[in-house]
Amino acid sequence: MFTSETQIRVRYAETDQMGVVYHGNYAQYFETARAESIRQLGFTYKDMEAMGIMMPVVELHTKFIRPARYDELITAKVILKELPTDHRIEFHHEVYDEIKNLLVTGRIVLYFMETKTMKKTVMPTHLYEKLKTYFPEN
Amino acid sequence: MFTSETQIRVRYAETDQMGVVYHGNYAQYFETARAESIRQLGFTYKDMEAMGIMMPVVELHTKFIRPARYDELITAKVILKELPTDHRIEFHHEVYDEIKNLLVTGRIVLYFMETKTMKKTVMPTHLYEKLKTYFPEN
Amino acid sequence: MFTSETQIRVRYAETDQMGVVYHGNYAQYFETARAESIRQLGFTYKDMEAMGIMMPVVELHTKFIRPARYDELITAKVILKELPTDHRIEFHHEVYDEIKNLLVTGRIVLYFMETKTMKKTVMPTHLYEKLKTYFPEN
Amino acid sequence: MFTSETQIRVRYAETDQMGVVYHGNYAQYFETARAESIRQLGFTYKDMEAMGIMMPVVELHTKFIRPARYDELITAKVILKELPTDHRIEFHHEVYDEIKNLLVTGRIVLYFMETKTMKKTVMPTHLYEKLKTYFPEN
Repeated sequence: MFTSETQIRVRYAETDQMGVVYHGNYAQYFETARAESIRQLGFTYKDMEAMGIMMPVVELHTKFIRPARYDELITAKVILKELPTDHRIEFHHEVYDEIKNLLVTGRIVLYFMETKTMKKTVMPTHLYEKLKTYFPEN
Repeated sequence: MFTSETQIRVRYAETDQMGVVYHGNYAQYFETARAESIRQLGFTYKDMEAMGIMMPVVELHTKFIRPARYDELITAKVILKELPTDHRIEFHHEVYDEIKNLLVTGRIVLYFMETKTMKKTVMPTHLYEKLKTYFPEN
Repeated sequence: MFTSETQIRVRYAETDQMGVVYHGNYAQYFETARAESIRQLGFTYKDMEAMGIMMPVVELHTKFIRPARYDELITAKVILKELPTDHRIEFHHEVYDEIKNLLVTGRIVLYFMETKTMKKTVMPTHLYEKLKTYFPEN
Repeated sequence: MFTSETQIRVRYAETDQMGVVYHGNYAQYFETARAESIRQLGFTYKDMEAMGIMMPVVELHTKFIRPARYDELITAKVILKELPTDHRIEFHHEVYDEIKNLLVTGRIVLYFMETKTMKKTVMPTHLYEKLKTYFPEN
């Protein structure tokens, strides 16, 4: 299992008139958390796009338990439970407030696609090798 | 069953560097479609908030089939399959492009809550009466 | 002078916890209004990008007089006071509420640029010919 | 003069199909930078709202020199050139890329308002005392 945590400060723009973070904005927190998790492996999603691979989102499931509020320093956790073996990768997301209350959970599925051909592909070898060390059973 | 359709023009701001609508922005299209569906019943979500009832989102599930692109006039369909009988309401969403390709589907669960007490409540009677006519079996 | 008006319904996502539209979101209303104004001339900004011309924003000035609120059907007016003669185009924006109160004014400067070379260019001839009819003095 | 710098990582959601940050999103970077600048003084905008003071934006002027791109770690600088003496406060903003190129400049005017009465007020004394130390001439 590979996990990673990133801290994000809630912006005013991200709240709505209910006084809490607009539900649609968690997709951006999840995205930020995934980007940072890959960076912690010495790689970036930007590198991947430069290599001609993009990762469109195919599914996003979110459960909203407690609202995040303006200026809170939330913790966005990413969990990769399984090492991908084909074009599909699935991340779990959890967002916590400053006193470790679970606010939101998410599950997202993305595909590895060749930008030029729009055909399904697999994770870059470099990233796969890095990730494999977190899955000793494989 | 109650259904409703709303047309939305994709904004430049809603695209990302993949050249398509950012996946997180469909939450706003779904929201727009729900707001218009209620308006077609002679009621507004704004009225509901003015009555002291708010509707936080508790679950959102989205599947991305084909991307929407800048300037497309997409059709956002809302489907209410069951008439709510308690604090919980569930909408289905479908987004189509101009030639009726299905782009995205969604399922969202919201609660009726009293703004003052933050306690669960039910749909305003006025809205319930309007909606009931679409569910003759009830 | 060329003017155009577009109606926009304020989304919940666009409000912030002050209970009004977040100031940064007017840029999107202005963009929507410009896109619709060009469409009224039988052309689209999408067409222009397809022709290899893009229009980056170089300046944006906004004054916020009264706040727009959730679910309001605002009117976004675009005013082109001068017919561009080089790579530079300047639009004025005005946003009104349903009872014609002026809410926000804007002034934006964009450049016509060749996407391939990133060099300054001029407005497509087709659009220029359309616009010229609104400037009889030229 | 009071200055402050904050680093912000550009999100994918913030780009548009031009492959750069959407111009309207700099308002959020400026907001983040102002919030962090106040935090560096041992105060927060959140505290201010809790005290019954809010700060609506009344003017925003932005110049776009070079585009910021996905995943860049930009530096958002805030400059307060004058210590406010009434309800009005004006900040200057500068955004730099990782190699210190100036990307965007901004100037924003906000008012101090009493949330309850919607009347103009002045900066909280506590914040004023902190800021005064940066303006020895006053």
